[in-house]
Amino acid sequence: MALKIACAQPEIIAGRPDLNTQKILQIIKQAAQSGADILFLPELAVPGYLLGDLWEQTSFLEDCETYGRQIINATADLDLCVVFGNIALDRSKVNEDGRMRKYNAAFAAYKGKALGNGALPYNFIVKHSLPNYREFDDSRYFYSLAQLAAELGTTPAQLTKPVQIQLKGTNINLGIMLCEDGWTDNYHFNVPQALANSGADILCNLSCSPFTLNKNAKRHRLFAAQAKAAALPLVYCNNTGIQNNGKNIFTYDGCSCVYNADGTLMAEAPAYSEEILYTNFDAETKQIAGTPAPLPAMEKTENIYQAIRYGVQKFLQQLGITKMVVGLSGGIDSAVTAALYTDILGAQNVLLVNMPGRYNAELTKNMALQTAQALKTNYMVVPIAESAEYTRTQITATPVTSFANGTEFNLNVSPYVMENIQARDRGARVLAGLAAAFGGAFSCNSNKTEITVGYATFYGDICGLVAPIGDLWKHEVYELGHYLNDKVFKREVIPAEIFAMRPSAELSPEQTVGTGGDPLVYPYHDKLFALFVESWHKASPAGILRHYADGTLPQLLGCQPELIAETFKDTASFIADLERWWKLFCGLSVAKRIQAPPIISISRRAYGYDHREAQLTPYFSLEYQKLKNELLKK
Amino acid sequence: MALKIACAQPEIIAGRPDLNTQKILQIIKQAAQSGADILFLPELAVPGYLLGDLWEQTSFLEDCETYGRQIINATADLDLCVVFGNIALDRSKVNEDGRMRKYNAAFAAYKGKALGNGALPYNFIVKHSLPNYREFDDSRYFYSLAQLAAELGTTPAQLTKPVQIQLKGTNINLGIMLCEDGWTDNYHFNVPQALANSGADILCNLSCSPFTLNKNAKRHRLFAAQAKAAALPLVYCNNTGIQNNGKNIFTYDGCSCVYNADGTLMAEAPAYSEEILYTNFDAETKQIAGTPAPLPAMEKTENIYQAIRYGVQKFLQQLGITKMVVGLSGGIDSAVTAALYTDILGAQNVLLVNMPGRYNAELTKNMALQTAQALKTNYMVVPIAESAEYTRTQITATPVTSFANGTEFNLNVSPYVMENIQARDRGARVLAGLAAAFGGAFSCNSNKTEITVGYATFYGDICGLVAPIGDLWKHEVYELGHYLNDKVFKREVIPAEIFAMRPSAELSPEQTVGTGGDPLVYPYHDKLFALFVESWHKASPAGILRHYADGTLPQLLGCQPELIAETFKDTASFIADLERWWKLFCGLSVAKRIQAPPIISISRRAYGYDHREAQLTPYFSLEYQKLKNELLKK
Repeated sequence: MALKIACAQPEIIAGRPDLNTQKILQIIKQAAQSGADILFLPELAVPGYLLGDLWEQTSFLEDCETYGRQIINATADLDLCVVFGNIALDRSKVNEDGRMRKYNAAFAAYKGKALGNGALPYNFIVKHSLPNYREFDDSRYFYSLAQLAAELGTTPAQLTKPVQIQLKGTNINLGIMLCEDGWTDNYHFNVPQALANSGADILCNLSCSPFTLNKNAKRHRLFAAQAKAAALPLVYCNNTGIQNNGKNIFTYDGCSCVYNADGTLMAEAPAYSEEILYTNFDAETKQIAGTPAPLPAMEKTENIYQAIRYGVQKFLQQLGITKMVVGLSGGIDSAVTAALYTDILGAQNVLLVNMPGRYNAELTKNMALQTAQALKTNYMVVPIAESAEYTRTQITATPVTSFANGTEFNLNVSPYVMENIQARDRGARVLAGLAAAFGGAFSCNSNKTEITVGYATFYGDICGLVAPIGDLWKHEVYELGHYLNDKVFKREVIPAEIFAMRPSAELSPEQTVGTGGDPLVYPYHDKLFALFVESWHKASPAGILRHYADGTLPQLLGCQPELIAETFKDTASFIADLERWWKLFCGLSVAKRIQAPPIISISRRAYGYDHREAQLTPYFSLEYQKLKNELLKK
Repeated sequence: MALKIACAQPEIIAGRPDLNTQKILQIIKQAAQSGADILFLPELAVPGYLLGDLWEQTSFLEDCETYGRQIINATADLDLCVVFGNIALDRSKVNEDGRMRKYNAAFAAYKGKALGNGALPYNFIVKHSLPNYREFDDSRYFYSLAQLAAELGTTPAQLTKPVQIQLKGTNINLGIMLCEDGWTDNYHFNVPQALANSGADILCNLSCSPFTLNKNAKRHRLFAAQAKAAALPLVYCNNTGIQNNGKNIFTYDGCSCVYNADGTLMAEAPAYSEEILYTNFDAETKQIAGTPAPLPAMEKTENIYQAIRYGVQKFLQQLGITKMVVGLSGGIDSAVTAALYTDILGAQNVLLVNMPGRYNAELTKNMALQTAQALKTNYMVVPIAESAEYTRTQITATPVTSFANGTEFNLNVSPYVMENIQARDRGARVLAGLAAAFGGAFSCNSNKTEITVGYATFYGDICGLVAPIGDLWKHEVYELGHYLNDKVFKREVIPAEIFAMRPSAELSPEQTVGTGGDPLVYPYHDKLFALFVESWHKASPAGILRHYADGTLPQLLGCQPELIAETFKDTASFIADLERWWKLFCGLSVAKRIQAPPIISISRRAYGYDHREAQLTPYFSLEYQKLKNELLKK
């Protein structure tokens, strides 16, 4: 008996059960017309997932319930089983915070009814494994199957059974799990195994799983092995769209797919596309019919480009913003950002602004002009030397009265203070003013390397609506720049000189393209900072020094062996550099990130609520201090 | 057999196990010298609690373990049992995120050894109830006793036993729990009851519990009842200091105390003071000796003042900031903020700045001057009319080139855009520049009412180092103003006229003290907005409209019955107002909060990671739409 399986990956809008339900009802119609027998929809397809504490608002929850019933009712006159994710409420119980009991649930609807699995006291399936890492706060909102089992005095295994349904005269056991239930590595109860053991004919995983670089490859390995171990096909259903937690904007690539009982990837939906994936399931042999049709793999920068483009585009659409202003310094970060917005919004909706101050070179001014010309955007030059000077004079010439003793005094503006005055003049004065006058918003062009150590000025350059390249290391910004030239625009919109010159903030006589650039040696610091924030067990100065001492640091960083020796003349300067950036990473840069714009998040750890931070004082561990002393004594 | 119990509430510094251990070792010495038999120290006294994802850094965790051993070793030659909170590691297991197994644990150390309870496979006690609401993310970092029990195939009850110890020849069973273990309302396993049932002689709760308005009263009710139900004394041990999660700065008031077996409050440590509380416990009668000595209760505004003053002071100390600049508009928010900093830092370290623009009245300018004179601070007047005009001219006079077609055009600056240009000129240009020149930071003067609806300008007034009154509703700002005059300065540092005049942003001809003030009717909107964010089940427009329709809204809000009728001429204007602010609350104001400074958090729900938010599109529920239609049809 062949059953036609439909797997949809709609664009889900967080917090809009009305719009999501509308879309789901359309998909149900479409799947029914295509003769599908089972339709899978993603986890929390009705409410969306990243809602913040909107999960606490009863009236919102009740609407999700109502819309869920509409979806169940829509199956009344069809011969289609619809499996979808929604919030489920139990008003007779509370969560551990005392609020209404909420489950992250899967509903299997057929002939107008939601089917249970016979083991749970509900007509829905309850998520067992609640992730509480990175951006996930599941335990904050949902009661888990593990908690429910404990409450009922039973075990998760007793409650984990497939949902039985008769389709075309055949009994099918649907082994339904929700997202993290499939990521079995670190939970002592294995949901897919339990479903297979209790007679599932097919496994399905409803997910709401954001794009992360390299995550799909890991998922393919994991779920293929899972299908193979269970000797059952596995349908992976994930939504598209964007969702955010305030600080992080995540893209959802969907990439729904179907694995056969031997783990073969049989079919895959394209990333960020709302299409429905159809496959045929033979209920007798428990096999997916046909020949495998995986999609070609994408290379890293293509993946990054696709995610950032989709993320920025959808975010601007959500906010109703159609025009953007970008400060264009003549450097790589702003050029890449400008090219991205031009690609997304069209050149006529982008205003690029070069804001030369006292220390900007002709070279970078020309680069800015050339970039704008190549992109065919709107362009203006707004000098800031005069206004920065005005601020300096106003601060230093206006007398301060001390009412304690009736005296007057004047303030000084140091060269360092003047650097930040210029940066803020550009951001909060010019760009913010221009954005409002142009009828749009302005962009934050900061990259992850700068954000790591706060190499940016409050209300100067680390401000704006959104940071499109805020999760890219400097070398990835260059890679994306080449990709934009070669593959997107297919011409040199970012001039070759921009790739060639040494980056510089151009805020002081010492800090120019000609005389000296950023204090960061990007090939080294990019990798070092990635260890700080992206490594699984969070590297610390102690570990880095240990590797430095035994000569394995280049391996750990994945950089050229000679780079470290070339960059640091001796151990003392290596240590001084490490401490300088570590203190900034733990100190002032945290304060800057707290007030930074949201970041399009693509890495396995993006700044924001993905990587949570308190403002602490820098701490050097006992091992670090010991190692440092030993090394400096040598 | 009388045992002397010491309960310490040290100032714990998050992320500094070195400094915390130093302090704990001193306290141990002190308690031993005082002849104490048992010393209680707070939850996570070694690492601190709000560390963000520093909990993932192995080298930090290992240092905490090492320092914990130092504390245990310090008991070797004493006749003192030390009970303290620390992180506990089990390298043979992992958390559900795959990282090293971590428990939020209590150690009972005696004669150089950590004693277990005989039921757990460890020599420490494991926290059962992990809070995952408000600012708490316990499940993100710690494995609970409930999870451990499931993993071991047993129940929490089997693992919950007192720690037995022989002191002065008597066996004492210490019933040790950690913070949330005592907040038993919504957990299906009751830790204190289980401890009492398994033979505890005394209960103790080690906490790391931040100050929240009215929380102590609730705790007294709960824990007194708990002691009474168990017929056992209960020692509540909580730390002092501040800790933050980035967006929220919480104060820890300690307020450690001891309840007798009948629930009587026997002794209490003063708020925000590091002192050690001593009581005598009769092990035979299981009673605390002596007469009850509770501290006098504090009224609300005193509580608020104390918390904000302590929070700001400690936060500035942590950052090493000794000087502050405050923009002084002549209104209540900036006057209260200025008075607070003067109280905290001393007048000579405060620079108040009046920044009149085109629309500022003589009245408010005089009020600013009078406030600075009364506070005896440093003061300057930095006009912004000229600089704002400069920006307007630069924006409108600089031609924009369209490289799409080679044409040029000019931008316009609308009056609304001009309002924000002025605000940003004050914040990001003048105050930020002055702060750097003065050698300090500048303050954010926003209150909770404004923050709720984003009645503030990005990089203008919702910026700065920290928002001292960001968790106060407008009426609470007035109350604090009176308190500062009456109780702190004991003279009129905030002029009476400031309390009397109608608040206004003074950014346009329509928006002046004379012609019209803020669009907020504070006595009404303060209460309405509190429902949005502070009510337990998060009010929604539907609920508010329901109460409006049946005439119970004044009761719900706690405002004068006639206020609503006086404020809104009809139902349509009530609804228009509600929708206006609700859309801002769910929309643009979220974007502003994402980039807002950290807030000194004192309410039961402060903006930041206490109240988590995604940027969503405003949603009106089905019930709301139905009610609205019905009401408007009438």
